[in-house]
Amino acid sequence: MNDMRDTGLTLNPKYDRDGLITAVVTDAANGQVLMLAHMNAQALALTVESGFAHFWSRSRQALWKKGETSGNMLQVVDVRIDCDQDAVWVIANAPGPACHTGQRSCFFRRVTPNGLEGVDAAI
Amino acid sequence: MNDMRDTGLTLNPKYDRDGLITAVVTDAANGQVLMLAHMNAQALALTVESGFAHFWSRSRQALWKKGETSGNMLQVVDVRIDCDQDAVWVIANAPGPACHTGQRSCFFRRVTPNGLEGVDAAI
Repeated sequence: MNDMRDTGLTLNPKYDRDGLITAVVTDAANGQVLMLAHMNAQALALTVESGFAHFWSRSRQALWKKGETSGNMLQVVDVRIDCDQDAVWVIANAPGPACHTGQRSCFFRRVTPNGLEGVDAAI
Repeated sequence: MNDMRDTGLTLNPKYDRDGLITAVVTDAANGQVLMLAHMNAQALALTVESGFAHFWSRSRQALWKKGETSGNMLQVVDVRIDCDQDAVWVIANAPGPACHTGQRSCFFRRVTPNGLEGVDAAI
């Protein structure tokens, strides 16, 4: 299953039927996963060119510069793409909360066999 | 937009039209993102209960215990779920490569304005 898309150096994202790839954002400071969202081609290009993370909001069906309203923009340190080019990993500096709930990370609950439990912000 | 799903302690995954949520796996040793895959309800339950990461293979349309063939299983350290419960973050011990190309992480290429470039395995 290795082909040029998997191992070559040509950007060739495998967009899904909605024209999107998945984007995971980690905190450059500590490797914590902050959020997961989606990008269309325009959002990916703007992220790479501007140095600030852009996404495609599936709920609003609109381009979304993260933090444009709240001020909590994500300053891009690095952008990686995975083997089959349907996901990107954005390493970013995050001055404030990434989550709409006010938590630093969207992943503030642990899944256990007995349901969810809250976790501290730090890993 | 805060509701019980976003902030409560009841597991209530928001599966997509294919019955899947997204799963991002990071290396417990260094926070590197190893891979991104998908889980259906069974894969999520098996991951939490067995302590080894399970996914749903969209290409094979089958449950997939990561590493069952290669031996490179992912030993689960922690499982988190995000605010809208459509993504999980699996923190895992990875004894071997997570990527089918033989790379430790699937995210072994950087996206630049001029195309892709290879990166070292370490962040």
